[in-house]
Amino acid sequence: MIDVQNQIDDRGIKIQRTGISGVYLPLIILNQNVLAKIKFTVALNKNTRGTHMSRLAEILTDYVNISLKISDVEKILRDAIEKLETNFSAVEIAFKFFVKKIAPVSERESLLDIDCKFVGELSKNSSMKFILNLAVPFTSLCPCSKEISDFGAHNQRSVCRVQLEFSDTEKLDEINIFEIVDLIESQGSSKIFPILKREDEKFVTETAYKNPKFVEDILRDIVLALREIKNLSAFEVECENFESIHNHSAFAFQKENFEK
Amino acid sequence: MIDVQNQIDDRGIKIQRTGISGVYLPLIILNQNVLAKIKFTVALNKNTRGTHMSRLAEILTDYVNISLKISDVEKILRDAIEKLETNFSAVEIAFKFFVKKIAPVSERESLLDIDCKFVGELSKNSSMKFILNLAVPFTSLCPCSKEISDFGAHNQRSVCRVQLEFSDTEKLDEINIFEIVDLIESQGSSKIFPILKREDEKFVTETAYKNPKFVEDILRDIVLALREIKNLSAFEVECENFESIHNHSAFAFQKENFEK
Amino acid sequence: MIDVQNQIDDRGIKIQRTGISGVYLPLIILNQNVLAKIKFTVALNKNTRGTHMSRLAEILTDYVNISLKISDVEKILRDAIEKLETNFSAVEIAFKFFVKKIAPVSERESLLDIDCKFVGELSKNSSMKFILNLAVPFTSLCPCSKEISDFGAHNQRSVCRVQLEFSDTEKLDEINIFEIVDLIESQGSSKIFPILKREDEKFVTETAYKNPKFVEDILRDIVLALREIKNLSAFEVECENFESIHNHSAFAFQKENFEK
Amino acid sequence: MIDVQNQIDDRGIKIQRTGISGVYLPLIILNQNVLAKIKFTVALNKNTRGTHMSRLAEILTDYVNISLKISDVEKILRDAIEKLETNFSAVEIAFKFFVKKIAPVSERESLLDIDCKFVGELSKNSSMKFILNLAVPFTSLCPCSKEISDFGAHNQRSVCRVQLEFSDTEKLDEINIFEIVDLIESQGSSKIFPILKREDEKFVTETAYKNPKFVEDILRDIVLALREIKNLSAFEVECENFESIHNHSAFAFQKENFEK
Repeated sequence: MIDVQNQIDDRGIKIQRTGISGVYLPLIILNQNVLAKIKFTVALNKNTRGTHMSRLAEILTDYVNISLKISDVEKILRDAIEKLETNFSAVEIAFKFFVKKIAPVSERESLLDIDCKFVGELSKNSSMKFILNLAVPFTSLCPCSKEISDFGAHNQRSVCRVQLEFSDTEKLDEINIFEIVDLIESQGSSKIFPILKREDEKFVTETAYKNPKFVEDILRDIVLALREIKNLSAFEVECENFESIHNHSAFAFQKENFEK
Repeated sequence: MIDVQNQIDDRGIKIQRTGISGVYLPLIILNQNVLAKIKFTVALNKNTRGTHMSRLAEILTDYVNISLKISDVEKILRDAIEKLETNFSAVEIAFKFFVKKIAPVSERESLLDIDCKFVGELSKNSSMKFILNLAVPFTSLCPCSKEISDFGAHNQRSVCRVQLEFSDTEKLDEINIFEIVDLIESQGSSKIFPILKREDEKFVTETAYKNPKFVEDILRDIVLALREIKNLSAFEVECENFESIHNHSAFAFQKENFEK
Repeated sequence: MIDVQNQIDDRGIKIQRTGISGVYLPLIILNQNVLAKIKFTVALNKNTRGTHMSRLAEILTDYVNISLKISDVEKILRDAIEKLETNFSAVEIAFKFFVKKIAPVSERESLLDIDCKFVGELSKNSSMKFILNLAVPFTSLCPCSKEISDFGAHNQRSVCRVQLEFSDTEKLDEINIFEIVDLIESQGSSKIFPILKREDEKFVTETAYKNPKFVEDILRDIVLALREIKNLSAFEVECENFESIHNHSAFAFQKENFEK
Repeated sequence: MIDVQNQIDDRGIKIQRTGISGVYLPLIILNQNVLAKIKFTVALNKNTRGTHMSRLAEILTDYVNISLKISDVEKILRDAIEKLETNFSAVEIAFKFFVKKIAPVSERESLLDIDCKFVGELSKNSSMKFILNLAVPFTSLCPCSKEISDFGAHNQRSVCRVQLEFSDTEKLDEINIFEIVDLIESQGSSKIFPILKREDEKFVTETAYKNPKFVEDILRDIVLALREIKNLSAFEVECENFESIHNHSAFAFQKENFEK
């Protein structure tokens, strides 16, 4: 059977990334069973017409029953470099995981869903570049609305999305994702919880009212917090408030790079 | 060229609806230029293998530069019945339109986007069944949170989605969609506006605080309001509060039918 | 602390459904760890102002580590009726699960994601009404395109979405969801697979070409297949072909009810 | 009334971008009435607590009835720099527009929807950076499937998404977006059309079969085509085939920068 993918290509273009996307698989990450949505690509040298996509799907399937640490992302990428005979591979693994939340007064336990994405990129004779994406929800309460109003203040659900790039790939498994989630949600006007009894709702309401923050305030406080994370080489952060008084969002964005 | 669609089918199944979906076209509705997403189907008799999908696309294209009234939906459906030689046709035309909003104090004008869908169904020797879908946003402020807290009250953006079925198809063009939008958004804790100056923000904040409503309160008030709409034969209504203190929504639903 | 929800309501409206939506939780269904998106509602009597939403979240959290059979949906609903002191409850649990696929020639194993939703409704002194929703992908190849073209035939990914209502609630755990998925995907021009080696790709390509089907053909064959499922009291089915020659879909829909 | 936004901030962080997102407005672009989804942000100096979001909404509203050329995006950005007293502004305007398509044999006319986004960024004493985003659909037919199969070949809808950065901002209004769409869709196995009569369907089917292309072939041909566009300083391109034989996509990506 002819191997059409292996035909010689004379357009002279090395393809930076080619592979599969929109792949769903059940994985085990952070000791949780997650539903992962995956994009998995490799570089293709300029003389070859096509890559062998099925090998990428086979590699991913190999990892279905294995508990993955962050450092294991590099193994997946090394498999791709070897089995696809290339010098670069990249993978994005997006999933929801759950954080245990304890209601502030009643101490009821519940599970809050957090969106996460691992992005790994590997060049052949190098160590993995790793970017952690998180989307963390919380409440924001508007300082202007509080100040100018005789009573009340508009507030709303907000989300902070971060992309965190880590430098020392020897220490990737020391990243404490749960701590980072906590760090981020602590910068809103109040944390949020799936289960709140009345005494908790009072606590959350009053906490937010005592702690009014613009989207810019939240962004700045998250920037200050992120700068303290160990081994971070760069970050991007965006905050979005789903304004309760508009049909659109308030938005803020910042990007920093600590590399020399 | 063989007409494969016209081949005889012997499975004995009259198909209730077959046609095209996910069709985007620029239409003129409510005197506004809208981006419409359309599903357009017909019944197919039990002896015929397939319908002629391209004719459905041709009919829709005929209506691109024509300003459509609600009653014109019936013309589209009659075209389908005639050109596809069937006895039933149905169309769903979903679009965003804009409502002019005037800020409550500064009186600044702005445009609020509202999701709308026209659903028409026509049997050959009958008049059109018409259902109007609207999704209207507003603010809700929680009565429990206000009552139990020493200050403040959680609030959030909410949306009410209605499906309104009208009985007297002679009078469809008398339906005042802008009035219905206003009727619905008046049942929240406060209306929302794309542009609010500080004096307006104070007004909206205080209005919501003085007017706390559970999702159930809003649902009940909208039910009472909808019952007063002329010529309504049935409705479904759902309200969703994008809770600022949770990562999920509070939700309520009601369905009524006034037909004998 | 005042129980505002328990205040008396005098609008005279019994609310059919009120509760929480957009709740994500990790559940165990079909012996798989799934990410569930849940809507959970109860009826609210006409004299009470609001329901106790947090109790609904608590009930769901109770089921996080328990392997759920279909019949267990009724337990969740009974918990709601009891703890919310109501006479009706409803739940929708949407999730992806995975079906093991074996490539037709190479026999490579892979996992195909299928969208599923359990819908349960329970009235106090009655048995549960249960509706199974599935969305099953496959390939469709156009008979007209094959017939009129000198070579080739356009084909595309398709999806069939079914809503299956079962009558005998004693036998819900006898429903074999994997068999139903197989039954549905068998009606396309060819099944699809996450991993296909070249010999498999040849098989799938030729199978589809030998088995051309309009969206109407697929719908009719699925209708015939569904009629044979035991204990089915009603179904709705829609098929959508993501046409490779258009930017829109071909679509067909059928609804049948076997109740007397 | 206190201007809380104007309070002094001592965290020492100049915010790169803050403003509004998810704003829908009806605009006139490319002489078409479009539904625009907009993100509009400005930089905020390190001493000021918050920006005046309502002014951004006011600026956008000013442009509702004005026909916009690409160069007018710079006017919007200059308005923001002036009215928000900042030195940087950015805007993203996403919309669908329509391309007139003529069926290849019957010559029927129809309208194909194309996703577009204008991205403009402006620093105070500089000219605008402009990036054009397009998503163009077409058909792809698999060369491997064609080669190894005795008959037929799998094919599917594909989309190419490009980000094109232009260098000479004096000549932005010379960009012919319709030509670029045509250039991109010409690199697939066949163009697609909203309305195809049987003779057209034969033409499209046979054209695709005679022109098999991997996602990598399409990417490379688009890269070659884009390199010929005048005034282009950089581009990113990704192609996605919604594989008819899988439930996932084949994907390829390339990025080039011509700046010295």
